[in-house]
Amino acid sequence: MSDALRTDLYQLTMMQAYWKSGHNPESTFDYFVRKIPSGSYLITAGLSYLLDYIENLHFENDEIEYLRTQDFDEEFLKTLQDFKFTGDILAMPEGSIAFAIEPIIRVTAPIIEAQLVETFLLNKMNFSTLIATKASRVAYAAKGRAIAEFGLRRAQGDGHLEATRATYIGGCASTSNVLAGKELGIPVSGTMAHSFVTSFDHEIDSYRAYADAFPKRCFLLIDTYNTIEGAKKAVIVGRELEKRGEKLLGVRLDSGNLCELSKHVRKILDDGGLEYAKIVASGDLNEWKIDELMNNGARIDIFGVGTELITGRPNPALDGIYKLSDIVENGKHVPKMKLSEEIVKTTLPGKKIVWRIMENGKFKKDVITLENEIVNEGAPLLETVVRKGKIVCDRPSLTEIRQNAAMNFSKLPDIYKKLEGAPAYPVEFSRGLIQLRADSVERIKREEIRQ
Amino acid sequence: MSDALRTDLYQLTMMQAYWKSGHNPESTFDYFVRKIPSGSYLITAGLSYLLDYIENLHFENDEIEYLRTQDFDEEFLKTLQDFKFTGDILAMPEGSIAFAIEPIIRVTAPIIEAQLVETFLLNKMNFSTLIATKASRVAYAAKGRAIAEFGLRRAQGDGHLEATRATYIGGCASTSNVLAGKELGIPVSGTMAHSFVTSFDHEIDSYRAYADAFPKRCFLLIDTYNTIEGAKKAVIVGRELEKRGEKLLGVRLDSGNLCELSKHVRKILDDGGLEYAKIVASGDLNEWKIDELMNNGARIDIFGVGTELITGRPNPALDGIYKLSDIVENGKHVPKMKLSEEIVKTTLPGKKIVWRIMENGKFKKDVITLENEIVNEGAPLLETVVRKGKIVCDRPSLTEIRQNAAMNFSKLPDIYKKLEGAPAYPVEFSRGLIQLRADSVERIKREEIRQ
Repeated sequence: MSDALRTDLYQLTMMQAYWKSGHNPESTFDYFVRKIPSGSYLITAGLSYLLDYIENLHFENDEIEYLRTQDFDEEFLKTLQDFKFTGDILAMPEGSIAFAIEPIIRVTAPIIEAQLVETFLLNKMNFSTLIATKASRVAYAAKGRAIAEFGLRRAQGDGHLEATRATYIGGCASTSNVLAGKELGIPVSGTMAHSFVTSFDHEIDSYRAYADAFPKRCFLLIDTYNTIEGAKKAVIVGRELEKRGEKLLGVRLDSGNLCELSKHVRKILDDGGLEYAKIVASGDLNEWKIDELMNNGARIDIFGVGTELITGRPNPALDGIYKLSDIVENGKHVPKMKLSEEIVKTTLPGKKIVWRIMENGKFKKDVITLENEIVNEGAPLLETVVRKGKIVCDRPSLTEIRQNAAMNFSKLPDIYKKLEGAPAYPVEFSRGLIQLRADSVERIKREEIRQ
Repeated sequence: MSDALRTDLYQLTMMQAYWKSGHNPESTFDYFVRKIPSGSYLITAGLSYLLDYIENLHFENDEIEYLRTQDFDEEFLKTLQDFKFTGDILAMPEGSIAFAIEPIIRVTAPIIEAQLVETFLLNKMNFSTLIATKASRVAYAAKGRAIAEFGLRRAQGDGHLEATRATYIGGCASTSNVLAGKELGIPVSGTMAHSFVTSFDHEIDSYRAYADAFPKRCFLLIDTYNTIEGAKKAVIVGRELEKRGEKLLGVRLDSGNLCELSKHVRKILDDGGLEYAKIVASGDLNEWKIDELMNNGARIDIFGVGTELITGRPNPALDGIYKLSDIVENGKHVPKMKLSEEIVKTTLPGKKIVWRIMENGKFKKDVITLENEIVNEGAPLLETVVRKGKIVCDRPSLTEIRQNAAMNFSKLPDIYKKLEGAPAYPVEFSRGLIQLRADSVERIKREEIRQ
C-alpha cells in the first residue's frame, strides 16, 4: 500500500481538472500556521513523515481500481500509473522554533503534484507540531523535573505513536507506550494500576508482589485507599528492598491535593530513610496545573501527563494551512494570494524565505522576505530537503531531533516561553514582500472587476 | 506484527508481578465513562477493533525480544510465547446509546489477561465513542441536512481513519477522506480548493475547467475573491452545463457570514434557474454554529465539518476507564472497588449488567443490577461477544452499525438530545448493587485499618 489515497477527494478531482485542461504550471505552496493555540511559539515536527511519503509516493493498482468506481476519467487514471513527485521542497528542520504566518514548508512542483501532497502534509505536520509544542510547554512548566507521557489510553486512536514521538521531541523524558519504545527507541516507564492494588486482599501484599517482581524498577501507587497510609506501607516495602540490596524508585500519587500530599509523603519517605525515593504525580495534569504545583513548592520529581499531552487539550488541532503563493505562467512568476472578507484568511504572495536575526545568542526577530531579496544579517530557516523529487537533506535520528529542539528552545528569550500572556514574537515582512502584497491585491481586484 | 505491545508498560510489569506471585485469579473489569464531555448520551463505537485485537492477540518473537531489553524475567517472557486471551467479554453492540457510569464492556478473565487488554480497549473505545457521539450531535443540529466530514487535514495523524469510521456511525453522510472510502466503503465527496481558483487567471476559467473535468459531480467554491460575484459566475457555468445536458450540483461557501450569504446566494441561483443546485457551507463549523444557522433560516443544504468532528473539539478525549469490580478467591466472588477522596473516582463493585426500560417506544430509564438479580421489565444491553477467547457475536457491517445507531437514537427522547442543558438520563442502581457497594466500602475500611 502507498499513502497516495490518504488525501481528500478534491485533490484528486482537481488533479484531473488540471490534467484535462492542460493547465499544470509550476506552482509554489506555503505551509504555515495562522494562529498558535496557546503561547507564542511552535516546535515544528512531522517532517520525517512527509519525506518518507514523498519518497514512496505512487499509485498502486488497487488504488487506481478504487478511483475507477468514483467517476474518474480513464485516460487520467492511466497517467496515475506513472505518477511521482518531481518537485522541490524547502523546510524548517524538525525541532525548529517557528511562529505564526512564517512558511514552515515550501513546496514547488507542477501543480498536479503539489496539490496531491497537501492533505498528507497537513495531517502530519499539524498534529506533530501541535503535540511537540504542547510537550515543550508542559516540560517548561516543570522547570527541569521529568515529564513521563502516559497518554495512550486517551489518545486519538492510532494517532498515539506519532503523538508520543512528538512529545519526546518537545521534551518529555519517557512514555508508557511500549510500542513507541520498541519502534522509536523512546525510554519506557510506568508504575502500577489501582486494580493491581485492589486485586490483592491487602495493599501491602500488592506492594510486596510488585517489589518482588521488579526490585530494580519499583514505583508503588499509594492512593488507592488512603494516600498517607499508602506512603507508610511504601516505606515498609522500601526498607525490605534495602535489605535485599535494592532501592525503591518511588511512589505515585494519582488523586487528591497533589501539592499537600507530596509534601506530606516526602516527609514520610524521608523520615523512613528513603530520601532517594522519588515522587511521581499524575491525574489530569497540564502545563498550568504543573506550574501552580511548582510555584506552591510541591515535592514532585516526575509528572505523569496523559490526556492533555497526547491530544493537545484544550486545543486538539493546529490550524496550519497550505496556500498557493506563486505560479509560473509563460516563463514568468505570477504571485498568487487569496483575498478574504476575514482578514486572517488572506495569504502572502510570492516565493518566500524566512530569516532569523540573533542578538547576544538569543532570537531577536524573524524576517519573511522574497526569495531573491538580500538580507544583511541573520540565518535562513528553510533548508532544501527535496530536490527534483529526491531527498537531499540529512535524516537526523529522533534523539538528534530532540537535542536540536532543546538547543533551539534555549535560544528563545524567556519572555516568549510564558504560559500565559507571552507577547507575539516579532516577525517582520521585507520591503519587497510588502510591496508585492499591495501590488497583488490591486491586480486581483482590477482583474476580477474587468471580467 | 501483533498489537500486543500497543499497551502501557505497567500492564506488562503487573502481568509479571501477578505471574511471579502466583496470583492470577479470575477477575472482572468494567469499561465505563465517568463523565460525558457534552450532552447527556454516548453513541458507542470501537468494539470491532477490540474483537479483531482479541482474536489476534499474541506475542511475536521480536516483541518478546524488545521486552528482554526492559528487565523482564526470562521465565516470564517464555510464558508470553503461548499467551492468548481465554476469557469472556460482554459488550453493548457498536451504535448503542449509553450513559455515564454504565458498564459498556465487561471483561472476565484471569487477571494477567484482563490487565493486558486494558490499554488497547481504552484507546479504541474512548476515541471511537467520542467521535461517534460528536457526529451524532452535529447531525442532530443539522435537522436532516447532510453532514460531509472534511477533517483529514486536522485529524490527529493516523487516527483519521477510525475517526472517519466513527463519524459515519454517528450519522455523517460522507467523507472527503479517499482512504476511508476505499477501506471502509464510506461515500466520498468534495468540492475544490481556493488554490484551484487562484491558479487560473480568472475565477470563471477555474470553474469551466472543473465543470469540464467533472460535469456530473461539480461543486464550485465561490468565496475566493467575492462570494456574490462567485455565485453569479457559478450560474453562468451552471447554465453552460445545462446546455451539455448536465447539472451543476452546487456551490460552496467557506468564509464570511454564512447565514446571510447563503440566503443571497440561494436567490442568485434560483433567479438564474438553478433551483436544483445545492449550497454547501464549511469553515470551522460545529453543532452550535449549525444550530444557530438553522435557527436563523440559513439556506444551507450540506454542512462540511472538519476539525471539530474529527478531533471532538473542544473535548478531544473521553475519560472512559476500565476498573476491577470482582475477583474469584478460593472459588468465591469478592467484589472490588476503588475508594477515593475524589468521589467521582470511586467505582462500583460486583459483576454487573445493564437493563433498559422502555415506555411508549422510547427509553424511559436504565437500571444497573448485579448479574444474578431478577429484573421484571426491560431488556439487557450487554451481549456476550467473546466466550472462552472466541468471538461468538455477529459482526455487523459498517452500514448496519450506522443503521442500528440511527434506530437507537430515534428511541432516545428529544429532551436528552438537546445540545445544551439536556438533563441527565435516569440511570438507577438496583437494591442489590446499592447494598453491595455499602458492604464493600465497610469491608475495605475495616480491612485497611486492621493492617
